[in-house]
Amino acid sequence: MELTAIDHVGVAVEDIDAALAVYRDALGMALVHRETVSEQGVDAALLDVGDSHIELLQPLGPDTTVGKFLARRGSGLHHVAYRVASVEDTLKALSVAGVRLIDERPRTGIRGSQVAFLHPSSTGGVLTELVQPAH
Amino acid sequence: MELTAIDHVGVAVEDIDAALAVYRDALGMALVHRETVSEQGVDAALLDVGDSHIELLQPLGPDTTVGKFLARRGSGLHHVAYRVASVEDTLKALSVAGVRLIDERPRTGIRGSQVAFLHPSSTGGVLTELVQPAH
Repeated sequence: MELTAIDHVGVAVEDIDAALAVYRDALGMALVHRETVSEQGVDAALLDVGDSHIELLQPLGPDTTVGKFLARRGSGLHHVAYRVASVEDTLKALSVAGVRLIDERPRTGIRGSQVAFLHPSSTGGVLTELVQPAH
Repeated sequence: MELTAIDHVGVAVEDIDAALAVYRDALGMALVHRETVSEQGVDAALLDVGDSHIELLQPLGPDTTVGKFLARRGSGLHHVAYRVASVEDTLKALSVAGVRLIDERPRTGIRGSQVAFLHPSSTGGVLTELVQPAH
């Protein structure tokens, strides 16, 4: 089990196009992917920063996880995701180490990746995702 | 002006040793640096994740920036930092692009780096740092 990179940092925003004007146009990050991830209730945009990404997340509605986050805390940092070779193996190792999991098993994330979330209560208040890229 | 990497993600915590038990011991990140940054009012620890770092921040007191953040929001994601070749040149370019700055000029950060902060109102609610490593 090794976390090999910060795969991405998720940012919750009210308006993904306004956020792209900042992250793509002012900060100069290349927009590499857009996707509606219905299962997670978000419109998402991935922008390149070196070998990592910024993931902009606009909720599909107020009752989604990100919609509730925005209502409670406003736009800003939402989660951090680490790249791993195997989400399944990493979940097993972290469970043995006493880390509280949100997902006991991998599920499908953006761009066909396998993902799982760890509970913030085990990670210093940080919503934490594991990502195993599809390619 | 180019943001070449996510240099680090800053996490505000109440107890840096308890956080190390998670990030170093359970998640397996190597602890590479500890420093008290008096100017920023924090005890800091840097842990490796690939070419990036997690920066754990424990405030030196309740009246520090991070102390106030903890009182308001609890422990969790505090800021994201991008690596740049020149903080000074990047600040100039971002200022021209209309991005609101907290620091008009670079100042000294952890491990002798040059750093500057951008205002969250210009970056989707995300406290954003630029880092020019010393080496």
